[in-house]
Amino acid sequence: MRMVDIIAKKRDGHELTTAEIDFFIQGYTAGTIPDYQASALAMAIYFQDMTDRERADLTMAMVHSGETIDLSGIKGIKVDKHSTGGVGDTTTLVLAPLVAALDIPVAKMSGRGLGHTGGTTDKLDSIAGFQTEISKEDFIRLVNTDKVAVIGQTGNLTPADKKLYALRDVTGTVNSIPLIASSIMSKKIAAGSDAIVLDVKTGAGAFMKNIADAEQLAHAMVKIGNNVGRRTMAIISDMSQPLGYAIGNALEVKEAIDTLKGQGPADLHELVLTLGSQMVVLANGAKTLAEARERLEEVMHNGKAIEKFKVMLKNQGGDPSVVDHPEKLPEAKYKIDLPAKQTGYVAEIVADEVGVAAMQLGAGRATKEDNIDVAVGIIMHKKVGDHVETGESLLTIHTNREDINAIKQKLYENIKIADHAERIPLIYSVITE
Amino acid sequence: MRMVDIIAKKRDGHELTTAEIDFFIQGYTAGTIPDYQASALAMAIYFQDMTDRERADLTMAMVHSGETIDLSGIKGIKVDKHSTGGVGDTTTLVLAPLVAALDIPVAKMSGRGLGHTGGTTDKLDSIAGFQTEISKEDFIRLVNTDKVAVIGQTGNLTPADKKLYALRDVTGTVNSIPLIASSIMSKKIAAGSDAIVLDVKTGAGAFMKNIADAEQLAHAMVKIGNNVGRRTMAIISDMSQPLGYAIGNALEVKEAIDTLKGQGPADLHELVLTLGSQMVVLANGAKTLAEARERLEEVMHNGKAIEKFKVMLKNQGGDPSVVDHPEKLPEAKYKIDLPAKQTGYVAEIVADEVGVAAMQLGAGRATKEDNIDVAVGIIMHKKVGDHVETGESLLTIHTNREDINAIKQKLYENIKIADHAERIPLIYSVITE
Repeated sequence: MRMVDIIAKKRDGHELTTAEIDFFIQGYTAGTIPDYQASALAMAIYFQDMTDRERADLTMAMVHSGETIDLSGIKGIKVDKHSTGGVGDTTTLVLAPLVAALDIPVAKMSGRGLGHTGGTTDKLDSIAGFQTEISKEDFIRLVNTDKVAVIGQTGNLTPADKKLYALRDVTGTVNSIPLIASSIMSKKIAAGSDAIVLDVKTGAGAFMKNIADAEQLAHAMVKIGNNVGRRTMAIISDMSQPLGYAIGNALEVKEAIDTLKGQGPADLHELVLTLGSQMVVLANGAKTLAEARERLEEVMHNGKAIEKFKVMLKNQGGDPSVVDHPEKLPEAKYKIDLPAKQTGYVAEIVADEVGVAAMQLGAGRATKEDNIDVAVGIIMHKKVGDHVETGESLLTIHTNREDINAIKQKLYENIKIADHAERIPLIYSVITE
Repeated sequence: MRMVDIIAKKRDGHELTTAEIDFFIQGYTAGTIPDYQASALAMAIYFQDMTDRERADLTMAMVHSGETIDLSGIKGIKVDKHSTGGVGDTTTLVLAPLVAALDIPVAKMSGRGLGHTGGTTDKLDSIAGFQTEISKEDFIRLVNTDKVAVIGQTGNLTPADKKLYALRDVTGTVNSIPLIASSIMSKKIAAGSDAIVLDVKTGAGAFMKNIADAEQLAHAMVKIGNNVGRRTMAIISDMSQPLGYAIGNALEVKEAIDTLKGQGPADLHELVLTLGSQMVVLANGAKTLAEARERLEEVMHNGKAIEKFKVMLKNQGGDPSVVDHPEKLPEAKYKIDLPAKQTGYVAEIVADEVGVAAMQLGAGRATKEDNIDVAVGIIMHKKVGDHVETGESLLTIHTNREDINAIKQKLYENIKIADHAERIPLIYSVITE
């Protein structure tokens, strides 16, 4: 088998065999197939696409390129949730204890973030003592006893995907549905989950700028999951404006606590129930999405969800008293309001630019080496469609430095006020098969 | 400027600017742009093509990537001829003295061959004493005094093309009209010619297997030439069967001598007059192709053409007596006929396979390191469409080893005899603008 023939075959629009895809991924991982052939193939795939069978094969070839996490020691169906990324997205932090409160195992592997705000691990760093660097044995034991645990990323998972993604990033081949879908799904499958719920974001703050592209990606991933024996569901949700009100690590932890108590922002509350319902159904915790939602609302209101969060914190060395005393969370030195310059309706809050502003405050990382300041961030006071008066605070900046004029300027530029503005729908589609 | 943006721009079907193409070629030559980005761009070009302006810019960027030959010391318009390659193609050896016999300067840079038979330099090696390794000064002096000289390839011409071609060869991006056309044209322009005549081959023995592809390539090259100030013409000629009767270096020299005397095979004679006429017109040696042909026929018949060949040999240390005594050319030890196994008409002589048979005899190189045996080769006795009787010799194998059963077998497999067969046209199109 020769790589040049595989490239030419795909270039000419033919379907690659399982053996050809394995040959490519194995050789590329081992270094016997050079970058310049991999990038030519990626570009050929960009133009010629892949069939459902090829996509499933590519996904599993990348899964087998490295270690995989064995969660078979955990009883029950392990459902994982993945978001394609956005600004102020606190759902994972809410969903893990919420779903676990229904006695459904949630074995969450979570990473550090790059960009707008931190990853789930970074957010949990704002809780004094909380440890995500636990052993695999402890991780599995905790999920078996208390149904929930969070572990930092471990092992050499999907090295082929890591290498290929870095190459695609510099060769104009990122934006290809089969390559994006197989990249995401390979990571989820290598992490050991039996079933997967996907939150595909669309809008300015998301990778997929329009709904049609987001739906195409969601369908691609659901198909891959189902074709490789992992039941998968997805939703398309809005990321044109930030989710919830909080952007920043400790600020988002506080928002997660509110949401677990049933007192979160309407959009975050709704998104958590939608994704959570899919997780419950996939774990056989309910027959219908409606029944699952009812069960989740119940544990929010009867206190079991927030109780589970406390157990999770305690199990991993964190201080559970932050739940009842959120003032114990790290707090920024300065709180600076951003007053509206005109009266009207909020017409646009450009999610990615607001996210960059939060990152510049110190809430996120521009490069892998940057340190995060968990205390800083932004609390929005308005959503798109809200009325606002001149001088009324649009948002409060939580910062540890006073000189933030450039950031204020950026925020003003990216929050538009107009005479009229419509609210933006939160969830565009629910894709269950 | 970032290479990844240039790749994405071409991927999305946009036209690259002159500066972007220069950035790519300069960076790739210097090694600051890696192979994996170059191969991704080549694949994007494969799918999205290039405009006439981009093709001209790419050609000139490759010309400027290395040295160029300065032929300004030679008086008159220097016309070069290029063939896309075939089996038994002796035209260059005939054209150089033939056109020079009309007092038109022919400054021929010629290389060694890879594949079927040798290049022009290899063929000239069969003439005792002939030297193509001459100084540039001698080369220019000889063309000025006697209108013709042949020099071996010299200088670091078009290093970008060499590097890019090697990359395309292993990344499935060879077969792209803009990339093939700019590759060929950059080499011709760097070699210093003012005008270019192109012989684009089509058929089994050629790179372009069908006429439509060959015409597309020819038009692309003619446009590039004219867009960068080099008048260019082209023809499309058949390479489904070998050209002329001789395949092999000394055998082709003898055939060239016959052709210069007006006694060559009909197809080679016709091709030489067609290409030669274009060269003469481009050099302002005639107003029309018909007038040019008349002048060429005249020097063939009055002996001036063969006289010019003798002068060329003598000037570069070769023995001119081979012209009148071709038995002085190296001769193979064995001459073995291949008798027809049935009576009928020759329906097919698969050019590339017959070429490979000659190479296996020692007439060509399988790898750059191989040595050529100039004496060996094949003399065909039949063209497609000729009648043949059982037992009649189809061809004579000139060989220095007796054990050639596998080669005989290969030749039988690739010469088909049928009840009926049509002759194949030699020239499909003449492209003058």
